Amino acid sequence: MSRSPGRKQENDKISRELFVLTYGALVAQLCKDYEKDEDVNTCLDRMGYGIGIRLIDDFLARSGVKKCRSYSETADMIAQVAFKMYLGVTPSVICSSAAGNEFSLILDKNPLVDFVEELPAERASLCYCNLLCGVIRGALEMVHLAAEVTFLQDRLKGDAVTEIGITFLRKPEDRKHKR
Amino acid sequence: MSRSPGRKQENDKISRELFVLTYGALVAQLCKDYEKDEDVNTCLDRMGYGIGIRLIDDFLARSGVKKCRSYSETADMIAQVAFKMYLGVTPSVICSSAAGNEFSLILDKNPLVDFVEELPAERASLCYCNLLCGVIRGALEMVHLAAEVTFLQDRLKGDAVTEIGITFLRKPEDRKHKR
Repeated sequence: MSRSPGRKQENDKISRELFVLTYGALVAQLCKDYEKDEDVNTCLDRMGYGIGIRLIDDFLARSGVKKCRSYSETADMIAQVAFKMYLGVTPSVICSSAAGNEFSLILDKNPLVDFVEELPAERASLCYCNLLCGVIRGALEMVHLAAEVTFLQDRLKGDAVTEIGITFLRKPEDRKHKR
Repeated sequence: MSRSPGRKQENDKISRELFVLTYGALVAQLCKDYEKDEDVNTCLDRMGYGIGIRLIDDFLARSGVKKCRSYSETADMIAQVAFKMYLGVTPSVICSSAAGNEFSLILDKNPLVDFVEELPAERASLCYCNLLCGVIRGALEMVHLAAEVTFLQDRLKGDAVTEIGITFLRKPEDRKHKR
């Protein structure tokens, strides 16, 4: 994680709405392209992955974040720094496994669905924001953390909150706490 | 233009990179979907139009902008307020007709192409950022200004600058300056 800051930091803040509406246009296009929700979800995840592996450099440069020493610290970093930076919101983080490798990001409000009222009945299995899972997965992979990232709850589907589950698949090097 | 502010203004600022990369994914998808550049351009313009007619409410609420009294004032507003708000850049504005209804927005730097090096040879007619033209056209239409909006120059195509041309098609009501 010792990448040097390479990108300019001026003028980096924008209003979110153009992004949210453009994302909506992307999902609508994929819904035209693919009949099955699962195919749209897969495509969004794959696109997100491609974005994540490029976005990580920008994130490291802007945030000044150094190596995280635990899964817990990594999950907090995603929620408190990355989400804040790129989506303007800060999910809460819950560790959801005794093994300490499963976390949930809980979003009371999902900024990406600002202009979406509800999913159409024929798109009940659509994970509208699945791009985010791919972004997280791709970015983590670039810092040598394999993870599964999926939506566990979604307010668009009637759940009380939106919940993104992150399961880290390998123990990262952790010199400070090694046995 | 007397719409009341209806949207919350907290947490409205985000980093541009996720948007830029998501936009790139959208264009890439359309390039998969359509063989002809012209069809991609048309699709981007149409998507942008759909975004513009929704984004205008957000713009009016956030900016507090009142009715513009001339085409010139409107062009300045697009460049200095709207571009700054949604893309973090401020194009310069040139009036390019004696009739005073044609303007150019000149972008020394186009934030949407941050991660794009050059267009592939087989996509030489692609207007990569054509979504923006549609957004401007749609937003203007919602404040009763018909306009043609097109890219006149594009650094992605080797031009020295990126230039968006706006031609207003009807004289707006202009009480202060009416003859």
